[in-house]
Amino acid sequence: MNFSSKLLEQAVNEFSGLPGIGQKTALRLVLHLLNQDNADVDKFTFALLNLKNNIKYCKQCHNIADHAVCEICLSHKRDRTLVCVVEDTRDVMAIENTNQYHGLYHVLGGLISPMDGIGPSDLAIESLAERLKIGEIKEIIFAISATMEGDTTIFYLHKKLKNYDLKISTIARGIAFGGEIEYADELTLGRSITTRVPYENSLMR
Amino acid sequence: MNFSSKLLEQAVNEFSGLPGIGQKTALRLVLHLLNQDNADVDKFTFALLNLKNNIKYCKQCHNIADHAVCEICLSHKRDRTLVCVVEDTRDVMAIENTNQYHGLYHVLGGLISPMDGIGPSDLAIESLAERLKIGEIKEIIFAISATMEGDTTIFYLHKKLKNYDLKISTIARGIAFGGEIEYADELTLGRSITTRVPYENSLMR
Repeated sequence: MNFSSKLLEQAVNEFSGLPGIGQKTALRLVLHLLNQDNADVDKFTFALLNLKNNIKYCKQCHNIADHAVCEICLSHKRDRTLVCVVEDTRDVMAIENTNQYHGLYHVLGGLISPMDGIGPSDLAIESLAERLKIGEIKEIIFAISATMEGDTTIFYLHKKLKNYDLKISTIARGIAFGGEIEYADELTLGRSITTRVPYENSLMR
Repeated sequence: MNFSSKLLEQAVNEFSGLPGIGQKTALRLVLHLLNQDNADVDKFTFALLNLKNNIKYCKQCHNIADHAVCEICLSHKRDRTLVCVVEDTRDVMAIENTNQYHGLYHVLGGLISPMDGIGPSDLAIESLAERLKIGEIKEIIFAISATMEGDTTIFYLHKKLKNYDLKISTIARGIAFGGEIEYADELTLGRSITTRVPYENSLMR
């Protein structure tokens, strides 16, 4: 693209470095911000810098938090014997939105991915082991994407945690509610048959 | 969405105010920036603030520029008798990319849209009339989208400019190269027949 201004080009290049944002979209976003009041643009950049400079991660579960320990870890209404292990804060938000889970979380902060140079020591795995040593936790649920990196991470975690007195489970895989069987991939469909559940258990409550 | 942090929520809300960015995309962008180095985030916000605070618009054509008059208006290789009237800087960039146009531009900064409260006085229309009074310009090309707002703007401009000794034209409408005739809308297809061009003129040069 031929920009009529170096300043414009720099701003567009910064925006097009964001995931899923190409140069045309970046230009649209930058021109939108350029048409806003100075105060609005200041608010935009302040919110970002404020987040970046003042962000805290919960000491216990490593989720993004406003204080040293997050609200979920502090809550007395939560089942403290149950911990759901997830990749990042988006997964916590997705699970919280279901209103079906009342235990605690442990946010790994990524998945093991040798291709990207991310090993176990880059993730919050040691601190999970530390939490387990206290002995309060009785069950671990892995809610991790069924990708190469996800499976590698689950495999590593399972090996590391198997000596603790724990129930270890993963979220159920299968055909989504509303999903059409004819369009399901063979792996999911095959597994959904071998891991079939009694009819009474399948009813929504 | 339930955010675990007020700071995160504020940043996501700012990003989801951008056109075409929903809350989930905004969260993805914010978490991406959160994983970057402080220096990278500073560079991102600096590029935006620098653009916003130091942006200049060409005195003559109103395109975004780094100096008081833009490079196109200053260029001696340009045909100064020809002016292409466009909505905004994105249209200038699109036309420049074709390498088919060697005249000057006039950037209106929007289109007449009574629904959005944008009238002729909000656009750079008076300054176009001022440019014409100098008498150097012989032809005006309207390269404006064929929407309701675009047509209104062209109609208004045409009325305003008809007393000048000018050739006034609009860009050709028709079936795009590579476009399939069976999928073209009736209006475009119908017009492409009534405004047909001699075969020799249709050959690419």
